Amino acid sequence: MFQLLRDGKPRTRADLAAVTGQARSTVAARIDLLMAAGLIAPAGEATSTGGRPPATFAFAPSAQVVLGVDLGATHARLAVTDLASTVLAHRELPLLITDGPESVLARVAETGAELLREAGRTTAELAGVGVGLPGPVEHATGRPNNPPIMPGWDDADVPAILGAGFHAPVLVDNDVNIMALGEHRAAWPGIADLLFVKVATGIGAGIIADGALRRGAQGSAGDIGHVAVPGVTDVVCRCGNVGCLEAIASGLAVANRLEGATTPADVVTMVRAGDVAASQAVRQAGRDIGAVLATSVSLLNPSMIVIGGILADAGEHIVAGIREVVYQRSLPLATQHLRIVTARTGTQAGVLGASAMAVDQALSPEAVDRLVA
Amino acid sequence: MFQLLRDGKPRTRADLAAVTGQARSTVAARIDLLMAAGLIAPAGEATSTGGRPPATFAFAPSAQVVLGVDLGATHARLAVTDLASTVLAHRELPLLITDGPESVLARVAETGAELLREAGRTTAELAGVGVGLPGPVEHATGRPNNPPIMPGWDDADVPAILGAGFHAPVLVDNDVNIMALGEHRAAWPGIADLLFVKVATGIGAGIIADGALRRGAQGSAGDIGHVAVPGVTDVVCRCGNVGCLEAIASGLAVANRLEGATTPADVVTMVRAGDVAASQAVRQAGRDIGAVLATSVSLLNPSMIVIGGILADAGEHIVAGIREVVYQRSLPLATQHLRIVTARTGTQAGVLGASAMAVDQALSPEAVDRLVA
Repeated sequence: MFQLLRDGKPRTRADLAAVTGQARSTVAARIDLLMAAGLIAPAGEATSTGGRPPATFAFAPSAQVVLGVDLGATHARLAVTDLASTVLAHRELPLLITDGPESVLARVAETGAELLREAGRTTAELAGVGVGLPGPVEHATGRPNNPPIMPGWDDADVPAILGAGFHAPVLVDNDVNIMALGEHRAAWPGIADLLFVKVATGIGAGIIADGALRRGAQGSAGDIGHVAVPGVTDVVCRCGNVGCLEAIASGLAVANRLEGATTPADVVTMVRAGDVAASQAVRQAGRDIGAVLATSVSLLNPSMIVIGGILADAGEHIVAGIREVVYQRSLPLATQHLRIVTARTGTQAGVLGASAMAVDQALSPEAVDRLVA
Repeated sequence: MFQLLRDGKPRTRADLAAVTGQARSTVAARIDLLMAAGLIAPAGEATSTGGRPPATFAFAPSAQVVLGVDLGATHARLAVTDLASTVLAHRELPLLITDGPESVLARVAETGAELLREAGRTTAELAGVGVGLPGPVEHATGRPNNPPIMPGWDDADVPAILGAGFHAPVLVDNDVNIMALGEHRAAWPGIADLLFVKVATGIGAGIIADGALRRGAQGSAGDIGHVAVPGVTDVVCRCGNVGCLEAIASGLAVANRLEGATTPADVVTMVRAGDVAASQAVRQAGRDIGAVLATSVSLLNPSMIVIGGILADAGEHIVAGIREVVYQRSLPLATQHLRIVTARTGTQAGVLGASAMAVDQALSPEAVDRLVA
C-alpha cells in the first residue's frame, strides 16, 4: 500500500481499499502504522460526495534523509536529499580517486556529516547512503572489481568503511548506472524501458527495463566500451581486440584524432566554437555509437535512448549521428516509437541517482515492513 | 506471503511471521484465507522443539489449472497443467498457421476443452490460457504485429477470440519468449540472468533479467535476427541491410549454402551422419552468432546462454562456435562465470513457457488478493 503512495498523490482510505483490494479495517490499521513511522501524513480532505469529507493521506518524504555521493576521477559531488530525492544540501569538491579508499572515503564521511548539519538533520535520520564510483563494482557486495583508473580500490569494502561513520546501509554502484538511475527518476520517471549512454573519456550504458535498473549477474551490464562496432575492422584497441567502440568513438578517441584537442572537453569547446572538423568528428562518433546502439535497440526494445556524458554537451551533432544509424539499422517495430535525446540532469545525474538508489533501499517493501512492524 | 510459498516448501506460521515481519495474528488470518481459496494446504507437522509440533502449510498447485498453447507454422502443442506447470494432459497436432486466426483458434479451443476433460477438470477450474505465436506480438494487447509468416493474423484480437470459449484470461507472446520462459522455469529456475537463443529457420532471443522475462517497450526485445554481425560486410539480407545475423547464420541460411540440404532439419541430419562440410558450416554459424552474442553479453551480463531451436540438435558444433567467439570477445568480468549450454526442454519449451506465463498471471499478488478478498 505504501508503494502506491510513493507517487506523492493524496488518497483516502476508500481509495486505498479499492486499489489494493484489502479490507477497510486492514487499510485503516496500516495507515495508522505508517503515520506512526512518519512515512505518510494527513494531506487534507477529499471532496465530499455528501456527509463528512473523508481524510486523505500522502507520502511524507521529509521523514528521513539519505546521502548521495558521486565520485569521479578528480571530483566528488555529495548531496543530502529527502526521500523524494529533493536536494537539501549540496557540495562539490576536488578530490583525487587515486588517493585510495581510506583517504577518499574519510573525506566523503566528513563532508557528508557537514551537509547533514547544514540541512538541519541528524545521523539518526539518515536512512541510507548511495555511492557511485568511476569503475566496475560488484553491486551485491559494494566492492570495486579491478577498476582500471582506481589504484588501491580493488575489492575494497566500501560499505564497511563508509558505514562505520554513518550507521546506515551503504549501497555502491558504478557511475554510469547511477547516472542512468538519476536521469530516469528525475527526467523520465514514466518511461519503463530506457537506455542511458554516457559518452565521455570512455563509453558505458545503464539499462532501465520494466522500470528498474538491470545490472546483470556480476553487475557489469551496460559495459559496451569494448563491443565490436559492426563494419569496423581496422582499429586495434588497447585491450587487444579489433573495432572496440571505445577505441573508435569515445571522447578520448575523438580528441586523439583531432588536431588541437587533447581532452573530450577540448572537443566540446571546438564544436561550440563552430570548428567544422570537430563537428564532423563528433557526428562520425555518433554514427559509430549508433551502430552498436542499433543492436542494443533490437535486443532491448527501449522507448528512449538518453545520451549523457561530456560529449552530449557538443550539441546535436552526436545525437544526429546516432539517429542516422539507429533508425536505418534497427527493426521498424523497435524504432517506430523510439526517441533519442540528450540528458536533462547534466552533472547532477550521478548524485541524484546515488540518492535514488539509497531511497529505493530505504523504502523497499521489506524495509518499510521492518519500520512499521 | 503467498509468493514465498510458491516455491513449494512447507512452512509454519512462525516461519512465515519471521520472514515477512508481519504479526502472528496477521499471518494466521492470511493462511486461513489462502486455505479457503484452495491455494495452500496443510503439509504435516514440523519437528517440535518441545510441546505440540506446529502445523506446516504449502502451496497447493492442483487448486486450479491453466492451458498452455504453442503454435508454430505447421503444428500446435497444447497442455493442461496445474499451477506448478506439471503437465496433466498433452496433445500435439498438425495445423497450418496460414489457415488464419478464426480457424486455428477454433481448433485450439476445441482441443483445449478435450484436454481439460482428459485431465478430469472443468472450465471453472481454468485460471488462464497462455499462447505462443510464431511472429511479433504486442504482449500488452495480445495482438500480432505484422507477422511475416502469419497471413490474416495482423492485429487479430487473439485474447478475445480465444477467451470467448474459455471465460479465463488469455495471454499471448511470441514463440521465442515463451520458449525462454519455459526453459528458464523448468531447467534453470535459480538463474536470475539468462539469455535464451533460438536458432531455427530464423534466429531470435528471449531475455530473462532479474528473474523475469523482459519484453521491452513494444514487446520486440530479443529480435536479433536483423542485427549486424561485426566483421561481415558482404552479405545482403532480404530486408535490404547488410550483414544481418539471420541472413548469415540461421538454419535456413546454412541449409541454403550447403549442397544436399534444403531445410534446417536436413542440416541436422547431415551433421549427425558425420558430414564434415555440414559440421563446419554449423560451427561457422555458431561463430557468427557468437559475434552478436558477445555484444549481448557485454550489454546484459547474463550468467547463462541457452541455445535452443532445431540447430541446437546438431550436437556441440554450434555451441563450440559460439563459445569460441564469446569468450574471446566479451569482457572478462562478464564471461568469468558465464555458461553456454544447449536447451534441456527441447520441443516442450514453448508449451511449458505458455503454461508458466498463464500461471504467473493467475498467481500474481493482484490476482491472489482478488481471490482471497
